[in-house]
Amino acid sequence: MVKQYLIDSKYIVEGWLETLLVSPNEEYKKLYEAMNYSLLQGGKRIRPILTKAVLESLGATVEPYKEYVCAMECIHTYSLIHDDLPAMDNDDYRRGNLTNHKVYGDGMAILAGDGLLSYAFQLAAQNKNATPEQAVKAISIIATAAGPEGMVGGQAFDLQSEGKHLPLQELQVLHKGKTGALFAASVELGLVLGHADQKSYEAYMTYANALGLLFQITDDILDITGTIEELGKTPGSDLKLDKSTYVSLLGLDGARQEAQRVADTAKQALLSTNHSTDILIGLIDYLLERSN
Amino acid sequence: MVKQYLIDSKYIVEGWLETLLVSPNEEYKKLYEAMNYSLLQGGKRIRPILTKAVLESLGATVEPYKEYVCAMECIHTYSLIHDDLPAMDNDDYRRGNLTNHKVYGDGMAILAGDGLLSYAFQLAAQNKNATPEQAVKAISIIATAAGPEGMVGGQAFDLQSEGKHLPLQELQVLHKGKTGALFAASVELGLVLGHADQKSYEAYMTYANALGLLFQITDDILDITGTIEELGKTPGSDLKLDKSTYVSLLGLDGARQEAQRVADTAKQALLSTNHSTDILIGLIDYLLERSN
Repeated sequence: MVKQYLIDSKYIVEGWLETLLVSPNEEYKKLYEAMNYSLLQGGKRIRPILTKAVLESLGATVEPYKEYVCAMECIHTYSLIHDDLPAMDNDDYRRGNLTNHKVYGDGMAILAGDGLLSYAFQLAAQNKNATPEQAVKAISIIATAAGPEGMVGGQAFDLQSEGKHLPLQELQVLHKGKTGALFAASVELGLVLGHADQKSYEAYMTYANALGLLFQITDDILDITGTIEELGKTPGSDLKLDKSTYVSLLGLDGARQEAQRVADTAKQALLSTNHSTDILIGLIDYLLERSN
Repeated sequence: MVKQYLIDSKYIVEGWLETLLVSPNEEYKKLYEAMNYSLLQGGKRIRPILTKAVLESLGATVEPYKEYVCAMECIHTYSLIHDDLPAMDNDDYRRGNLTNHKVYGDGMAILAGDGLLSYAFQLAAQNKNATPEQAVKAISIIATAAGPEGMVGGQAFDLQSEGKHLPLQELQVLHKGKTGALFAASVELGLVLGHADQKSYEAYMTYANALGLLFQITDDILDITGTIEELGKTPGSDLKLDKSTYVSLLGLDGARQEAQRVADTAKQALLSTNHSTDILIGLIDYLLERSN
């Protein structure tokens, strides 16, 4: 069920993304081409789908808030473009295609990322269906998660930690910023826009934080056990880079046990609410399964 | 009078900026150091001062809106950090100091810029004194001016136009994005937060657009006539890069006449309002004088 939901939701989100970025003039066309190149290159769309799934679980309609859903994917895409740059991870390929800077050059790739990041906030602020109170709260959540206290902080710490063996506690700080913050924000956006009550809010956020962690642990497991088709990159690349991962710190079995423990926490939190959380629970099993 | 106002306002703005960025943990300290390095390196602070001056001219107190004032400088600083990167203008010095990437490396400089951009929106959304309606409008203005329809668009067009001789019309598109958009947004922020009526709004925006253009024209003139002390860089550097400028297209006298014409438009617009616009008018003369 959740697999079909992911396919359907990806299709809906990508429909919105396809018509999102249109250059206002002839002079800026190349920039918009570069932004669209990465934004429309597929991927799981897991962050916008999370926002969508949370809204739906609360009984809300998603379409009126599509600007927020798209904003999350704009921010994720910007982070990938900048992450792939020679000054950062220096990757030539992503999802089997040339990375942005390999097609458009480093300068334009930096600007394409900058453009997508700014545009996410423009989208959010221009949505007409959230109340101004909801909008300000939602924008604060997105900015805090994307910025120096969240994702950018984690990326900077990752950059500094290259070639270092991080202990588990620091690895957790790194991932909480680098991937966890945006995951949590995707869920929280849905809670704010979907008028969740305080009790549900807390339960969903416990779920969100566990889900981000689960995503990272299963990613580390997949890096060892996955095939090149599943990963879109060579297996064992973290190992080769001598990076600390959950597998290198806990062993493969230890990492799988940790994944199961975190998955149970996430499920338990949702079961305490009386919303339709089947899809959200299904997402946990989906992440667990891909690493088994 | 305006010179003293600029000195005093710069002092006030820099007081706010100095305590703005504090790392939430040990792991992100280097990132915050890199962001502060560029944010606290001086400069004219003309954009935040514009927001301040507009608020004051409308009879509003500035301090309750200091997050917005600082947000404008965060965005300006991020644009300078990214602009100086090897993939863009490749500058080693700015204001007599090493550029961000020369001190912290290209990767950290990219992240410092990304962090400042995100943080600007976090600041704006976390201000408690604007109404939610004002906040959403203000954030929309900042994002649109900073993003692909504004500054990033202009920067991308500039990057593509390297080594090309742009005609006047395209040079105007370039500058309207690259510098004009943020200038106009600085004024518009003040209008939104200061509750300007519709007639004043239009008059101030005419002023804002003319001021941005005046800034660019006088910058181009200064590049020819200025000393290395005035510029903080070698005079004639645009000429050496064979860039289209107002001087290369209109000649020195032609550019000065255009500056005077634009200055008159800006003044005329303000005289139609009944607010205390002495400082704002003084700013026009200040810009005019520095190029005479």
